Amino acid sequence: MGSDAVIDIDRLMGRLFRMAEVGATDDGGVKRLALSDEDREARNLFSEWCRELGLKLHIDPLGNMFARKEGSNPGAPALLVGSHLDSQPSGGKYDGTLGVLAGLEVVQRLIDENIEHTHPVEVVNWTNEEGARFAPATTGSGYYTGEFSLDFARSLTDRNGKRFGDELDRIRYSGSSDHHKKIKACLELHIEQGPVLESENIAIGVVTGVQGIRWYEVQIRGSETHAGPTPMEMRIDPVQVLYPFLEYLYATTASHSPDARVTVGSIITEPGSINTVPGNVACTIDFRHPDGDVIQSVDKSLQHWCDEMNSERGPEILLNETWYSAPVKFHDLCMEGIEQAAMLLSLPSRRIISGAGHDSMYLARVAPTGMIFIPCRDGISHNVNEYADPKDIEAGVSVLFEAVKSLI
Amino acid sequence: MGSDAVIDIDRLMGRLFRMAEVGATDDGGVKRLALSDEDREARNLFSEWCRELGLKLHIDPLGNMFARKEGSNPGAPALLVGSHLDSQPSGGKYDGTLGVLAGLEVVQRLIDENIEHTHPVEVVNWTNEEGARFAPATTGSGYYTGEFSLDFARSLTDRNGKRFGDELDRIRYSGSSDHHKKIKACLELHIEQGPVLESENIAIGVVTGVQGIRWYEVQIRGSETHAGPTPMEMRIDPVQVLYPFLEYLYATTASHSPDARVTVGSIITEPGSINTVPGNVACTIDFRHPDGDVIQSVDKSLQHWCDEMNSERGPEILLNETWYSAPVKFHDLCMEGIEQAAMLLSLPSRRIISGAGHDSMYLARVAPTGMIFIPCRDGISHNVNEYADPKDIEAGVSVLFEAVKSLI
Repeated sequence: MGSDAVIDIDRLMGRLFRMAEVGATDDGGVKRLALSDEDREARNLFSEWCRELGLKLHIDPLGNMFARKEGSNPGAPALLVGSHLDSQPSGGKYDGTLGVLAGLEVVQRLIDENIEHTHPVEVVNWTNEEGARFAPATTGSGYYTGEFSLDFARSLTDRNGKRFGDELDRIRYSGSSDHHKKIKACLELHIEQGPVLESENIAIGVVTGVQGIRWYEVQIRGSETHAGPTPMEMRIDPVQVLYPFLEYLYATTASHSPDARVTVGSIITEPGSINTVPGNVACTIDFRHPDGDVIQSVDKSLQHWCDEMNSERGPEILLNETWYSAPVKFHDLCMEGIEQAAMLLSLPSRRIISGAGHDSMYLARVAPTGMIFIPCRDGISHNVNEYADPKDIEAGVSVLFEAVKSLI
Repeated sequence: MGSDAVIDIDRLMGRLFRMAEVGATDDGGVKRLALSDEDREARNLFSEWCRELGLKLHIDPLGNMFARKEGSNPGAPALLVGSHLDSQPSGGKYDGTLGVLAGLEVVQRLIDENIEHTHPVEVVNWTNEEGARFAPATTGSGYYTGEFSLDFARSLTDRNGKRFGDELDRIRYSGSSDHHKKIKACLELHIEQGPVLESENIAIGVVTGVQGIRWYEVQIRGSETHAGPTPMEMRIDPVQVLYPFLEYLYATTASHSPDARVTVGSIITEPGSINTVPGNVACTIDFRHPDGDVIQSVDKSLQHWCDEMNSERGPEILLNETWYSAPVKFHDLCMEGIEQAAMLLSLPSRRIISGAGHDSMYLARVAPTGMIFIPCRDGISHNVNEYADPKDIEAGVSVLFEAVKSLI
């Protein structure tokens, strides 16, 4: 892009690095947990930048921040562009922050270029997207879209017993009135947090939605026995059910390839001694797919497998669902807007599903919503080594700018 | 057996319950760790009983206790009958103690019945069989048979940094001189610590030897990744090597059935989070077989499987041997003596391998050695619920008595 650049990448990177000083860790990462002193400092800095641009800042009762630039019709529904400024305990500089500062850059460009538009544009910082201090995650956007009540959100507590509401009051970011819900559309720019774009050398990911996620805790109950004296045929060894179960789980996932994803993140053997047959083996399953019907059908076949196994002698296997998050599909209006913007800028793009949750997941329930992904190095995120190339950032924010223009 | 009983079961059970008061736990078990105050008290009680029977007590430099009844030829090699008085931290009343007190009962019967015999008989209490406080286990018999030096054994330390030698001196059971090694044979009565005799309703197990044991630590190295964004084909997921490895391990063991036994007691996933593909999976293997050649051949096939797997793309699997204990075969003289004694008493017997280690494992290196197993409830041992039926104890000690008589 160069001299005819759509956005000012130096200004954006300047803000990004300035923001990374807030909660900076010794190893080059960022620790900016929701409603901490660092979160307050980040919010203050963002407020200052918004003030410099003459934007009108609204803070809602859950601390969501909306910085508004009016269009020619103040009564028209607003376009929301944003993400979040909170981070993981060992987070990187880009996750969330990039999306907020990209929104700021887009608005500044609208101002600098005196671009006329009808709809208001609002740059948003959503409270507690990460959920690293207060679970559940995406609390702010969940509240805004009606998923969580104010009381529920304010009563969340962290590990030290501190309440969300008290901490929000302490950092003085609990606003007094709810924000309007007159929304034209929502856009969010984010690093991919996966390896696909980088490995395919594609600048722009047009996000089609968020995978559905089902979590399970699996319990396999056997009988604890000394490893020596008990013959194999007299054992009730849960490991003898674990490995065929895992084989079936991965094979079932493969039968829904390439979209299905399965992760067995934790396996626990009890008592966990080298010369004792475990009395109990537990494992977790994280299964993801963009199609809710597939998730249901996989659930049925896993359950069926366990029922068959339990009808035989031997260890008992129990499959307990612990969480389900339905798949989200983003809006054609937004996907097409992003795609056309990429085409306009001659940037290669592809459609891509989001593996992780984002505020846009909730926003999609109340308004046309879309996301832009840009590559990040080695797909690494939630990590101090998180990195995105300034060229990729420039491309992503330029696409965001063109997509915003096409919608307002 | 009844009125023509070979041994006095009431006297034996009286001593067993009296001994169980030493280190008794609230839940009905026994805690008598080697060289603790409770171990001293148990030794004192055993010494008192030996004195009452007029036996001559020798204590060697490692605290092994030998209580001798002379035969008609004081120069003839002695028959050793014994086991151990120390226990696991949550041990039962029978493991070890039964073998020592059975020896005492046998000798008292020889005295009471004025039975003439040529060879001396010695009832032995071996120091630190359990290894629960000071590892390695079977220290006393290992020292006696030349496996461990006195310095090595005395320098062992417990978790609190207390030295074996200091503790032995403290409880005043470090004898001044080594004991003779003129041994005719060694016999040990023990609960099976497994379910075989009980389930087959057989009173007497004629132990053929001790299984060989090989321990491994297996490491499977992949690449830690967020469960959401990374497509299956771009993952290096160690769980995808774990389950085929376990399948191969159990199948290989089954191909050496019924004698081969395998236990995967511990599986550890790192970092162990439900929505993170583990970077590393570790598991342990405890493989046992009575034949050292089989253990070698299984080792080769497991290693070969790992080599094949490592020649492909994907996670790397490493098989590290951490311990090997060669199989032990007991002596025909002893096995036949026990078998004939069972036959004489019309008690059903079968040959059986010991899954666990015992002092007899070391004694077999220096003299003809044999063991008698009796059933224990549900195969449970190393547990406060350990239990053996007095009828089974009576049968076992009677067989021991007859076997002793046939050898002296």
